Amino acid sequence: MFELERRSRVALVTGAHGAVGRYVSRLLASDGWYVAGLGHGGWKGTSAADWGIGAWCEGDVSPVELARLCLRPDLIVHCAGSGAVGASMHEPYSDFSRTVTTTAVILEFIRVNCPEAVLVYPSSAAVYGIAERLPIAEDSALHPTSPYGVHKRCAEDLVVGHARLFGIRAAVVRLFSVYGEHFRKQLLWDACHRICDNETTFSGTGSETRDFLHVSDAARLLVASARHASAACPIANGGSGISVSIERVLTELFELLGRSSKPSFDGKQRSGDPRDYQADITMATGWGWSPKINLSEGLRGYVDWYLRERN
Amino acid sequence: MFELERRSRVALVTGAHGAVGRYVSRLLASDGWYVAGLGHGGWKGTSAADWGIGAWCEGDVSPVELARLCLRPDLIVHCAGSGAVGASMHEPYSDFSRTVTTTAVILEFIRVNCPEAVLVYPSSAAVYGIAERLPIAEDSALHPTSPYGVHKRCAEDLVVGHARLFGIRAAVVRLFSVYGEHFRKQLLWDACHRICDNETTFSGTGSETRDFLHVSDAARLLVASARHASAACPIANGGSGISVSIERVLTELFELLGRSSKPSFDGKQRSGDPRDYQADITMATGWGWSPKINLSEGLRGYVDWYLRERN
Repeated sequence: MFELERRSRVALVTGAHGAVGRYVSRLLASDGWYVAGLGHGGWKGTSAADWGIGAWCEGDVSPVELARLCLRPDLIVHCAGSGAVGASMHEPYSDFSRTVTTTAVILEFIRVNCPEAVLVYPSSAAVYGIAERLPIAEDSALHPTSPYGVHKRCAEDLVVGHARLFGIRAAVVRLFSVYGEHFRKQLLWDACHRICDNETTFSGTGSETRDFLHVSDAARLLVASARHASAACPIANGGSGISVSIERVLTELFELLGRSSKPSFDGKQRSGDPRDYQADITMATGWGWSPKINLSEGLRGYVDWYLRERN
Repeated sequence: MFELERRSRVALVTGAHGAVGRYVSRLLASDGWYVAGLGHGGWKGTSAADWGIGAWCEGDVSPVELARLCLRPDLIVHCAGSGAVGASMHEPYSDFSRTVTTTAVILEFIRVNCPEAVLVYPSSAAVYGIAERLPIAEDSALHPTSPYGVHKRCAEDLVVGHARLFGIRAAVVRLFSVYGEHFRKQLLWDACHRICDNETTFSGTGSETRDFLHVSDAARLLVASARHASAACPIANGGSGISVSIERVLTELFELLGRSSKPSFDGKQRSGDPRDYQADITMATGWGWSPKINLSEGLRGYVDWYLRERN
């Protein structure tokens, strides 16, 4: 059993400037951890400290930067990595380096410097690709349909392999459609922009479904997974368990942004893009975790933030 | 259908100084290919040319070295990579870099510079780990038991992913226990050394089995697989289909080295090391390939070479 409570311990969060990384950092700090962050991103003023980050190292996840940290963390949450399925089609090698190589670097760092450390790896539902049945259980076949998904799968294999071969305690969480404040790309950000530009037509049919999880719930699950990390490396889905159509999400955004119109769709299905996603979250709920923020509440918070931040 | 015959075409063989790489190079050259080699290894005198290598570039499989080659190959056989299961336990990050990163580099080189090129990737039976049943078919579950096996699996996933997502024509051959002249490590080399030092006791029980394939047969299969490369990326086992006990191999080596004694064994089984290997070679034989050199003949050739080269 992983002891979080007894004394202040040291966590390293890579990619801590990203949305998932900063929520994880803040949650760990509020649980009494000393949090060091490594990655890229310009913090303004004291904002790294506002997110609970005690030390920030601007740099790549590389052996050199990790050595510079002079840190023997008890916990590493490796949030760094590429975050865009679409971009991975155009720059697969960059996606590989950011996702797979950084994971190999972190695993070597743990093996050599801090073999007692726990590793939590946020993977992605993109490893599943087109699902054979819904909801998707963790033992489903993996047929990723993007370099992003292929690379997340490779990174998972490295983590699982190191856990089993070297006894490193690890856990993997396959995140579904994480959204929330501080996501400045992906579906909701783009949709809000387009709605504010008075565009009403979106690609697809609108009946495609996704499983949305608020970033604060995702962070809680990542931290919870650390307690279950082991050399067997459990893999848990991170979703709400609820499948929601793109049409419903966009309709809510239209309302929240004060539009009286409704979204329409061009009807074109994107080949290779899975039509439906829904997580089987039996494993994660078995850990005592459950999502707290329902989608309507989460979207309201996101739009409030968007309207403050968009410029 | 892949045209080898029509005109002289350009092949790039990475790791061409290694045993598999040099046999592949010589075979391609004899088939009329212009062969460029990239990798590490000191050729003596004209020996690179003796192996059919028209141009040798000493260097890493990196974007910089590939650019230096100024080559748009029609075929790439990516033989470079780590070659040692045991060493991968001690230096897994080095194994990762040599196997996985170089494969990502080659795939990016093809995607950007020569998307029409065919890629042949020599993988390893180590991806299977402990087999559920023998002979091992290509659709068996993959449970690698070494970083080497984990990394070969990752490299395979990258190749298959790029083939399917970017239409790159590729083929993967999972080589079993390849042996033959110019292997200066692994089982036979070490065994010959120990026998010549009058050691008679070996680790294990002797009843462990392996599927031995002579390197010239392996090279023929790799070249044959190029004709079947496609965006679906076929994966074929490369073995003899015959399971042979370690005791039998060592007994033959004792005889070939003029020893009247027989090998004995300490009886200790190495944990994690699969006990038995035997390839199901239905797919490869379906391509019209079959092994030509039987084990006794191959061992005789190896020992002759060993006795000339050992000093």
